Amino acid sequence: MSLGEFSLIEKYFSALGASRADVLLGVGDDAAQVAVSLPQTLVMAIDTMVEGVHFPVNTSPSDVGYKLLAVNLSDMAAMGAAPCWFTLALTLPHSDEAWLSSFASGMTELAIEHDIQLIGGDTTKGPMVLSLQAHGLVMPERCLTRSGAKLGDDIYVTGTLGDAALGLKVALGDCKYPESTYLLSRLNRPTPRVELGKAISSWANSAIDISDGLLADLGHICRKSGVGAQIQLESLPLSSAYLRADVGYNMALCGGDDYELCFTASVQYRETILSLSEQYDCPVSCIGKVTSGDAIECIHFGERYQVSRQGYQHFAEP
Amino acid sequence: MSLGEFSLIEKYFSALGASRADVLLGVGDDAAQVAVSLPQTLVMAIDTMVEGVHFPVNTSPSDVGYKLLAVNLSDMAAMGAAPCWFTLALTLPHSDEAWLSSFASGMTELAIEHDIQLIGGDTTKGPMVLSLQAHGLVMPERCLTRSGAKLGDDIYVTGTLGDAALGLKVALGDCKYPESTYLLSRLNRPTPRVELGKAISSWANSAIDISDGLLADLGHICRKSGVGAQIQLESLPLSSAYLRADVGYNMALCGGDDYELCFTASVQYRETILSLSEQYDCPVSCIGKVTSGDAIECIHFGERYQVSRQGYQHFAEP
Repeated sequence: MSLGEFSLIEKYFSALGASRADVLLGVGDDAAQVAVSLPQTLVMAIDTMVEGVHFPVNTSPSDVGYKLLAVNLSDMAAMGAAPCWFTLALTLPHSDEAWLSSFASGMTELAIEHDIQLIGGDTTKGPMVLSLQAHGLVMPERCLTRSGAKLGDDIYVTGTLGDAALGLKVALGDCKYPESTYLLSRLNRPTPRVELGKAISSWANSAIDISDGLLADLGHICRKSGVGAQIQLESLPLSSAYLRADVGYNMALCGGDDYELCFTASVQYRETILSLSEQYDCPVSCIGKVTSGDAIECIHFGERYQVSRQGYQHFAEP
Repeated sequence: MSLGEFSLIEKYFSALGASRADVLLGVGDDAAQVAVSLPQTLVMAIDTMVEGVHFPVNTSPSDVGYKLLAVNLSDMAAMGAAPCWFTLALTLPHSDEAWLSSFASGMTELAIEHDIQLIGGDTTKGPMVLSLQAHGLVMPERCLTRSGAKLGDDIYVTGTLGDAALGLKVALGDCKYPESTYLLSRLNRPTPRVELGKAISSWANSAIDISDGLLADLGHICRKSGVGAQIQLESLPLSSAYLRADVGYNMALCGGDDYELCFTASVQYRETILSLSEQYDCPVSCIGKVTSGDAIECIHFGERYQVSRQGYQHFAEP
């Protein structure tokens, strides 16, 4: 069954997610209207997923909906912000109601979990390109950025690294690995570390979420902060699935789509920060140090380790 | 010359538009951060333009950049809001520096005119799909919506109608019309009625911007407000180019892309509202009345006029 644009939007997207008191006008007008409570400041991030580029063509629409929201919530986490509203720009080749229903259900699941509401958007016809903008609130003094890393800071990551990159190989049928269901779920349903992001905002000097690989994203912190970094590879948090795949360190260092947090903090907070692991049921690992200079050095049991490639860049020269 | 993603973004989009004091963190982090001054509320709208769907493939990138911002500013105008920041999600097939430079220049022109700043975005590889989200501030009691039209209200439109639809026929090479340069500029560089939108917010009961054609968009006001409308076709504001094209009323009633405002207000404000024409150097025309019922009736010198089609809908059944 084909439906007109307005009916389609109304059916699946007029009331998606939480129902929040600070939304004065939601989906269905020329714009949405919300109230921001001072002294909080507003943060916002927009991320796009293109079919065949950011997810394989055969990905379940429910996973696509989940992930599109998750990657933007991950940006909120990296700012230490509490997410509250989001907008959606969907370009779709045709009005496939089954697809929309599944897409919306995956997205709803995560939206309800994080108490955020869809407040507006646009639906257009064309090749499948999906953009989502997330909005969050943060006290100005708690907002985390890429530019605050200080010489001597500890470097931390949440969760485990490289699982999503292995999951992509499984999804594309390139490789078979043990625990493939786990790896696929890490690819398709990343866990945005929102609560951890808010927690670390009291102590962290800088933060970023790892979407393009640890080295690429830690590299952004280094460039923005004017520092270098030294990573101890034996300290990298690796899942049992990753270890059993026996692929060395490169996927953990350079694989994309992990959506874990990488952050830096003064050594005096180490005990406090490591204790967050248990409190938030998520590994928090100290993996290295902020150094002077502008390079990231990888050390493996005292030896320099040569990394074969950096993170993925769109449009990069081959 | 090909550039990496980060260099491309930085070169053309790191400092586009105004430089505003309320932007605490602009392009280049996980998210942007802004300060909202109470008691103002925040409004936001996102609109997508797909190459070959929303603009012909041969459209100048400078016009594409201008229009992408203009259509979103038009949504701000329809809310009575003062636009302040925007974000950009660009999906592009390749890193064409000439294209990006021209696109950014058209966008910059309008951004500077309206004192708004680009604060973030995402650039991805794929078929050309361009989304922009505009953010504006409005006092809560001045925010215009589609749902406030009252029985007996006058119906107004700004500017002239149907020019962009004729411009599209010119751009596609389908028709030759007099004043084609004017018609093309109305298609490619619509004028968002931001100042007029703010001005009418003191008196208007409802407002919308006309993107899908007057009848379709006035239809939204009617549905949301639970009212009908009667339009006097002889009162429709038509440009000399439109009149010389001699195409009847349908293009003015149903043609898309005008980005004029349609709004309703109590009869007592008619003189005040019509005087805005001169003050803002833009026609403001009273074209009809809000009625009971749920239909829009078109009257031409006392006779009912039959309209051949409604506005454009994506995904609509043929």
